[in-house]
Amino acid sequence: MGKTKSPAGIAKLDRDRRTPLSRQVYERFRAAIERGTLRPGDRVASARSLASELGVARGTVEAAYSQLAGEGYFEPRGQAGTVVSPALPQPRPARPARSTRPAGRDPRRAGVRPQTNALAPLAAPPPLQLGIPALDAFPRELWARLVARRARAAGAADMFYGDPAGHPPLREAIAAYLLVSRGVSCHPAQVFVTAGYRASLALVSRTLLKKDDRVWTEDPCFPPTQDVLHAAGHRTVPVPVDDEGMVVARGLRKAAKARMAIVTPSHQAPLGVSMTLARRLQLLAWASQANAWIVEDDYDGEYRYAGPPLPALKSLDGHDRVLYAGSFSKVLYPGLSLGYLVVPESLRARFHDAARTWSNGCPQITQAVAADFLRDGHFSRHLKKMRLLYARRRAMLVAALQKAFGDAVRIDLQSGGMHLIARFDGRRESDVELAARAQKAGLNCQPLSERGTPGICGEGLLMGFTNVASGAQAQQLATKLRAALDAR
Amino acid sequence: MGKTKSPAGIAKLDRDRRTPLSRQVYERFRAAIERGTLRPGDRVASARSLASELGVARGTVEAAYSQLAGEGYFEPRGQAGTVVSPALPQPRPARPARSTRPAGRDPRRAGVRPQTNALAPLAAPPPLQLGIPALDAFPRELWARLVARRARAAGAADMFYGDPAGHPPLREAIAAYLLVSRGVSCHPAQVFVTAGYRASLALVSRTLLKKDDRVWTEDPCFPPTQDVLHAAGHRTVPVPVDDEGMVVARGLRKAAKARMAIVTPSHQAPLGVSMTLARRLQLLAWASQANAWIVEDDYDGEYRYAGPPLPALKSLDGHDRVLYAGSFSKVLYPGLSLGYLVVPESLRARFHDAARTWSNGCPQITQAVAADFLRDGHFSRHLKKMRLLYARRRAMLVAALQKAFGDAVRIDLQSGGMHLIARFDGRRESDVELAARAQKAGLNCQPLSERGTPGICGEGLLMGFTNVASGAQAQQLATKLRAALDAR
Repeated sequence: MGKTKSPAGIAKLDRDRRTPLSRQVYERFRAAIERGTLRPGDRVASARSLASELGVARGTVEAAYSQLAGEGYFEPRGQAGTVVSPALPQPRPARPARSTRPAGRDPRRAGVRPQTNALAPLAAPPPLQLGIPALDAFPRELWARLVARRARAAGAADMFYGDPAGHPPLREAIAAYLLVSRGVSCHPAQVFVTAGYRASLALVSRTLLKKDDRVWTEDPCFPPTQDVLHAAGHRTVPVPVDDEGMVVARGLRKAAKARMAIVTPSHQAPLGVSMTLARRLQLLAWASQANAWIVEDDYDGEYRYAGPPLPALKSLDGHDRVLYAGSFSKVLYPGLSLGYLVVPESLRARFHDAARTWSNGCPQITQAVAADFLRDGHFSRHLKKMRLLYARRRAMLVAALQKAFGDAVRIDLQSGGMHLIARFDGRRESDVELAARAQKAGLNCQPLSERGTPGICGEGLLMGFTNVASGAQAQQLATKLRAALDAR
Repeated sequence: MGKTKSPAGIAKLDRDRRTPLSRQVYERFRAAIERGTLRPGDRVASARSLASELGVARGTVEAAYSQLAGEGYFEPRGQAGTVVSPALPQPRPARPARSTRPAGRDPRRAGVRPQTNALAPLAAPPPLQLGIPALDAFPRELWARLVARRARAAGAADMFYGDPAGHPPLREAIAAYLLVSRGVSCHPAQVFVTAGYRASLALVSRTLLKKDDRVWTEDPCFPPTQDVLHAAGHRTVPVPVDDEGMVVARGLRKAAKARMAIVTPSHQAPLGVSMTLARRLQLLAWASQANAWIVEDDYDGEYRYAGPPLPALKSLDGHDRVLYAGSFSKVLYPGLSLGYLVVPESLRARFHDAARTWSNGCPQITQAVAADFLRDGHFSRHLKKMRLLYARRRAMLVAALQKAFGDAVRIDLQSGGMHLIARFDGRRESDVELAARAQKAGLNCQPLSERGTPGICGEGLLMGFTNVASGAQAQQLATKLRAALDAR
């Protein structure tokens, strides 16, 4: 047996480990080959003799040898025994130490699993979080029943690949909803279900834009819009927003030949103003003339507390230049990861191809449940309830802020939306500093000034009011905020 | 009243329509303004007189007027009455007729909702469909229970935005599974949950590749790989596959400076061969030297019927050049739209940024249920069961084909996978023609020759055997196939 080789340590199999003994044998040989302790052409002990040496059943070693042979590490040569496969390249040199890395980060380097492999668990949203619906008011039990029903009823068609453009019943339900509630008339085949606004915009970028294309964005702007456009290599052209929405004339002066404009006409994000009809028509006229596209991000068009919701810009789109981006994150809940995009008929085929290429679609069951929720009327009832609830919660937060800050706060209240802007004009600190203090106290206020080019929209704190559950909680939050802002 | 204007047809409100009367009034005015029948500055009838003219309650008309004013169509002028807003631009010219379009396609153009707005419903997969697991053998009831449990227990953290990189418990469960079953050692933070293989590859393209970068692909190849790379503007370099997998030496000659290679080492798609250890090490050596990346598409590495599954190429990745792409489409079911990508530690931060930018993540509940299924041991039990089942189903289809075709069929059986390749060497017709005949008969066979560059891999029909439920069904399918191929 002198001519045969075994990895160092092979004799010390660990009988307490959960790993089967044959797996341990396998692992030791493999490691030895990879480290270069055993080299191509080396003859290894016969299964019988190694088994006897280790005091294990011969079958145990044979199983390991068979796997090593199957994977190409060993080459069995009949009577001549078994050798480390000569076809293997010589082992790599030992890899350089990389001492700059935290030791715990790379489990493979240490040779063992790290002590803790846990990631931080997800947390509930902090108070005053922007842009999420009232999670406490969502009809969870009803939703859970719909989910359970769909899960039980799933058949082969529901388990097979879905249409990457979206589950047909959901596309139909969205088209029907848009017609009634948002004034948008489209065929279900123009509706593309996506994983949400970012995914919709990524699809638009892939399908309609080239690198370096210029895109009008609102100034101030919803940060994800900038994120996606910049990451895709497009050039954003910030166009100021005034009381009537995007100042289209400024866009024309800055870049009349831009390829696209992205707007939030219902309630500008973050200022909350509604784009006037005159501006909407100017924007549409520009797009039609310039052969440019408009993306309407109608993220919370349903939430309007004075009068009925405004119809979407898309409803005025006589020349088919508008892509309408909707999301269920703010009207159902964000963890659903479900949104949609309505494209002009002329773009339908291109988007269908793109959806097919880039995505495997969204889970069928999520889409089926959303379709049930829309079709059975739960959705419109839920929205009606939320409009009343949010109006109340907004009023509670306003009252509490006024009580806590008195004249020191000035509150921008627009006709809709999910947040308010509190301006503290008398303070020397910037809104960035104030927001940092609030966040330190666990209140997720965001500074307005960071949403736009410097100086464009003044300063203030953006606060979501949708999850302010009671007057008492509003008071408590306002008091806490006051203390946080006053802290040094 | 002579000076005031009303839209034509305003007198004929439709009391049978479900649309409320005030909405109808609103719509008629809006349409008239958009068509130019009413022009900016025109005075409209008072709400009282129009209500009396129409025989409806005054409040009905007032509600419509209020909405029209709110949206900027009307401008109320107190005592002077109400006018069409002078700020509106003059109406657009009527749009050109586009008679080339099917009339039913654009509901807006026709002014009414189309007769049918339905899309084709989704269908169950046809017999012999490639690349899907046995849908009849999936533990649906167990899954439905897990889904129902998660849906009932959903709290605020589950409804809030998830981590776009993936649900932490699922990332942990995937890392644990990969260590035990695929020999891949990684920290959960290196695992990114995606909507499936295409989404994983899109993320890789966005993060690591530039337009025109060259990528080695296998020849023949899995079509989605080509789709995504071409759509992203990368140049594919087809590298032939022989009995040992991708011929790395050929890749070196064709494009040694390529940026990436995409391979299916466990069972090459579609040929089914396993990449030998020697080739794996050659590929790794090239990547390390060329600073190139390797994407390992381990779509069905678990399905091996002779011996235990091979460890992943990633398990040999001493220089951190391999990105491991896994999918639940073939080990759970495709409608789940869930996959993942394991990236080297050095790329973790870049992929985290990219995941955050491009996606709103996958639905939390889907991820939570998948995590439960993995952690509670259902997954490994299911895989064990499927390995036995697929070996049986494969044997049944082979036997049935041999009975139906005798010597006229030659079947390529590899050690794993979810399909076989049936070669009909004696026939004059191409495999493309044969596949077309089979498909006409409802059997979803695919021609092998179309998967690669012309002549690279011979001809044959690819047939999925995973959903062949019984020997009797196998016989029936084989007989049907025989008749279809013999048909003219």
